[in-house]
Amino acid sequence: MLGRMMTEPLLISSLIEHAGKYHADTEIWSVETTGGVETTSWGQVAENARRLGSALTKLGLDPQARCATIAWNNRRHLEIYYGVSGAGLVCHTINPRLFPEQLVYIINHAEDKVLFLDATFLPIASGLKDKLPTVEHFVLMGPRDEEAASKVPGLKFYDELIAEGDPEFEWPSFDENTASSLCYTSGTTGNPKGVLYSHRSTVLHSFASNTIDVIGYSARDVVLPVVPMFHVNAWGSPYAAAMSGARLVMPGPGLDGDSLVRLIDTYGVTLAMGVPTIWLGLLGAAKKSGSKLESLTRTVIGGSACPPSMIDTFRDTYGVDTVHAWGMSEMSPLGSANHPLAKHAKLPLEQQRKIRENQGRPPFGVQLKIVDDNGKDMPEDGKAQGDLLVRGHWVLDSYFRQDDDGLLADGWFATGDVATLDPDGYLTIKDRSKDIIKSGGEWISSVELENIAVSHPKLANAAVIGVAHPKWDERPLLVAVKAEGESPSEEELLAWYDGKIAKWQVPDKVVFVDALPVGATGKVLKRELKTQFNDVLTV
Amino acid sequence: MLGRMMTEPLLISSLIEHAGKYHADTEIWSVETTGGVETTSWGQVAENARRLGSALTKLGLDPQARCATIAWNNRRHLEIYYGVSGAGLVCHTINPRLFPEQLVYIINHAEDKVLFLDATFLPIASGLKDKLPTVEHFVLMGPRDEEAASKVPGLKFYDELIAEGDPEFEWPSFDENTASSLCYTSGTTGNPKGVLYSHRSTVLHSFASNTIDVIGYSARDVVLPVVPMFHVNAWGSPYAAAMSGARLVMPGPGLDGDSLVRLIDTYGVTLAMGVPTIWLGLLGAAKKSGSKLESLTRTVIGGSACPPSMIDTFRDTYGVDTVHAWGMSEMSPLGSANHPLAKHAKLPLEQQRKIRENQGRPPFGVQLKIVDDNGKDMPEDGKAQGDLLVRGHWVLDSYFRQDDDGLLADGWFATGDVATLDPDGYLTIKDRSKDIIKSGGEWISSVELENIAVSHPKLANAAVIGVAHPKWDERPLLVAVKAEGESPSEEELLAWYDGKIAKWQVPDKVVFVDALPVGATGKVLKRELKTQFNDVLTV
Ligand SMILES: Nc1ncnc2c1ncn2[C@@H]1O[C@H](COP(=O)(O)O)[C@@H](O)[C@H]1O
Repeated sequence: MLGRMMTEPLLISSLIEHAGKYHADTEIWSVETTGGVETTSWGQVAENARRLGSALTKLGLDPQARCATIAWNNRRHLEIYYGVSGAGLVCHTINPRLFPEQLVYIINHAEDKVLFLDATFLPIASGLKDKLPTVEHFVLMGPRDEEAASKVPGLKFYDELIAEGDPEFEWPSFDENTASSLCYTSGTTGNPKGVLYSHRSTVLHSFASNTIDVIGYSARDVVLPVVPMFHVNAWGSPYAAAMSGARLVMPGPGLDGDSLVRLIDTYGVTLAMGVPTIWLGLLGAAKKSGSKLESLTRTVIGGSACPPSMIDTFRDTYGVDTVHAWGMSEMSPLGSANHPLAKHAKLPLEQQRKIRENQGRPPFGVQLKIVDDNGKDMPEDGKAQGDLLVRGHWVLDSYFRQDDDGLLADGWFATGDVATLDPDGYLTIKDRSKDIIKSGGEWISSVELENIAVSHPKLANAAVIGVAHPKWDERPLLVAVKAEGESPSEEELLAWYDGKIAKWQVPDKVVFVDALPVGATGKVLKRELKTQFNDVLTV
Repeated sequence: MLGRMMTEPLLISSLIEHAGKYHADTEIWSVETTGGVETTSWGQVAENARRLGSALTKLGLDPQARCATIAWNNRRHLEIYYGVSGAGLVCHTINPRLFPEQLVYIINHAEDKVLFLDATFLPIASGLKDKLPTVEHFVLMGPRDEEAASKVPGLKFYDELIAEGDPEFEWPSFDENTASSLCYTSGTTGNPKGVLYSHRSTVLHSFASNTIDVIGYSARDVVLPVVPMFHVNAWGSPYAAAMSGARLVMPGPGLDGDSLVRLIDTYGVTLAMGVPTIWLGLLGAAKKSGSKLESLTRTVIGGSACPPSMIDTFRDTYGVDTVHAWGMSEMSPLGSANHPLAKHAKLPLEQQRKIRENQGRPPFGVQLKIVDDNGKDMPEDGKAQGDLLVRGHWVLDSYFRQDDDGLLADGWFATGDVATLDPDGYLTIKDRSKDIIKSGGEWISSVELENIAVSHPKLANAAVIGVAHPKWDERPLLVAVKAEGESPSEEELLAWYDGKIAKWQVPDKVVFVDALPVGATGKVLKRELKTQFNDVLTV
């Protein structure tokens, strides 16, 4: 027997309708690609999304045709998120930092029909045009631009496109499991794979993000998503913010520390989210400029491990609470977030702080477990390390257009992370399974060694990798980037580990580099470091 | 094309599994019917729920068989919520304050198979036993009690029942739209009608309750649901609290002000929810005892209009933020909650406070509109008054076992409330449509007149009803309950309206009573007052 309640589908269009209606005049500040800041509102974004949905519908695309974006975080991108998915099409966000061959592969694999481009990326795309047979419409995200039009024949202009759209367009209704958006993850091996989100998974993920112990947006927040909209939907912030009617600051192309400090101080940002490297830049810039980041109350940091020293600086210098979060493209992305439990209030301050350093607890809707090499469940005692498996309402079932039989183990998705879980569900990511260092049969977490290294005042950044060793198979190597004007010695840096970690885990050597190689999503490319330095201990 | 995400059903059992696993040692304090406070935990409640689910499954009941409760807010009731629904049966909560004929009607209409009883209600139920042919199992919610056993042949005991259950019971999986729980509303005319909730509606309602701008439970809250579990699932708090792992104080049978103050101060309650009459008692008791309600940060008040003076007292005397909420059984119940918007921070304090007095904005997932007598949409300008219609993910579609063709108008449910909506979605309930006073063709809101009356220091409580008038058809009558030791005059009370409301809306007369008649859910029975006083202006 079924209940007697209304059963409307969970659709992305209802998010923008909600924000457009009940938060019509709530501000959204958007740094434009061509410079300057535009002020818009949820009401205006909703109207433009309807116009776009209507214009795309008139193009006569197939249901769930892919409409791709190569764009920064700005208000047009936001309108495209809603206009495309709302109309029953699939919003395919593409990472502009990929190599051209990868871009071509992804666009062809997705069979994108429409390609929305920020001005920055018009040259790339027009250069690749001939290799993209499926793309029927190239749309520049801005007003008509004669120069661009002359260079790219047939180019459409976003502002003209939506001007033809109906501001009263009625969103279609359909199965909530319909595909809504697509994002390719650049796996370390093989071609990128597509994660195809659904309306249902997106709305449920937004609900979970909006609970207090995950992110918890409110209508009084000013949210700065520094995490790009081309990477896992900016952690779902464009959806979750609409659900709660939060104000947004879309930072555009300039993600350097100075620009971010300026945005935070100008618009009174209360909540910011991004990867650790971004915050390194921000903290440096704030120190230099003397900004107190007055308005900021919390940062959500994830994407790679957040060094404890960063949490400390945010708390002690700026009174900002850091929510360390973990997730992945295959999880929409939120898998866990670090908030304290009631019982922790009784612990000594030091211990309370220690608890805030790990990747946190899963929200309702996600389940985590760790298994050994044979797939057997391991104890969740905070000590046993195993392969992390996940399942839940916003977790991938199979990759787009892949024959994925056997991807899931008994309904669980293997994350590729090695982790511990404690009895309260707190997750500690020890490493990517491929990055963990195996020294004489014992495991060493590169993440732990890196966290200690970056807390050294004379270092700007650091990575630790396992390199070949004649006796121990692999030993840790510290790859260090000096802080401006500092020149720490190798001895000094290795001595920094004394008492912080077991002696046998201390790196064997330090090499200095000017900068760490980072990939398209801002994560350090350890593969490259490994290629470069694998032989330093054997020669 | 569908997304490629996992699609697990949204089930109530996953709420308790989440809390039982990740908040295993989080405390739940339960005032027992037989006296004393028991301390338990989400882990223990989850285990007992599994035991109960297993024991009920062994009874061989049909899928979605109704298992009823007549009980206070306590931990066994909580276990029954989860054990019954989790096992695929329907948890039917019954209001013990109903008249015996109504109880008989409801139990027979629902065809309850199991009846769980708190000791308080054993006499009522055993007295009615012969009239309840469908009930196969009467279960006393406690340990074995020889005296009760001898009086009620065949009586089962909860603690014995779950002792036989399997603590490792695996919850069944099924369609998320399956019926989960049932609650009858005592309409003003005709027989009570059943609202049959589903697993999906319940989980989505919990997500919405957990967003900051609705209630927003956190794992650090201590939640006191004074609103009874026999009335719209205690506003969904047993589910929402499990989702976030909040601590709970289950107040048992004693809902007088003194008891509540004691519970708040003893267990450090941070968040309490209930109807205005309950808080009148609480505020009186706190004043007498000198308690500062130190731990309390917010109250959620709804069920009937919250007088602004109560919001003021909570804020000014106790530093407590009141969230004025509106809903109904047919809405699970949450329809709106009052939180400020960002832009309000710029307004003068007085105006900011004024905004907090109405019933608030709908969360994502609920839509509201007002219509005129012909069903035509009315403007949402904060002025036009119309019949309030609703729709959404946790709104009733049709009543249980009713032929409800035509209940919904174009997919919208008519609430029976008369309201205004402003452009930001703030709802002001003017009256139940049957309570609004129609004076010479003009409408007068009884709620507004009551709010002014109860803010008079010499009154303990007040109601305003429309009574017959030879010239104006109907005129307002103030029915007043004097505060202890006070004896205000009629003139004094009517003068209190000066400048607060238009002259023609001031009541024509005051009658004094010792107490207001209240119904089973604690709301004032205006019908009774009307029968008693309808002629005071005509004779
Ligand atoms: N807070 C975090 N700490 C450590 N690793 C993280 C964290 N957040 C994300 N990751 C890593 O990033 C991967 C997901 O990458 P992506 O799908 O590109 O977002 C995860 O599997 C983790 O290895």
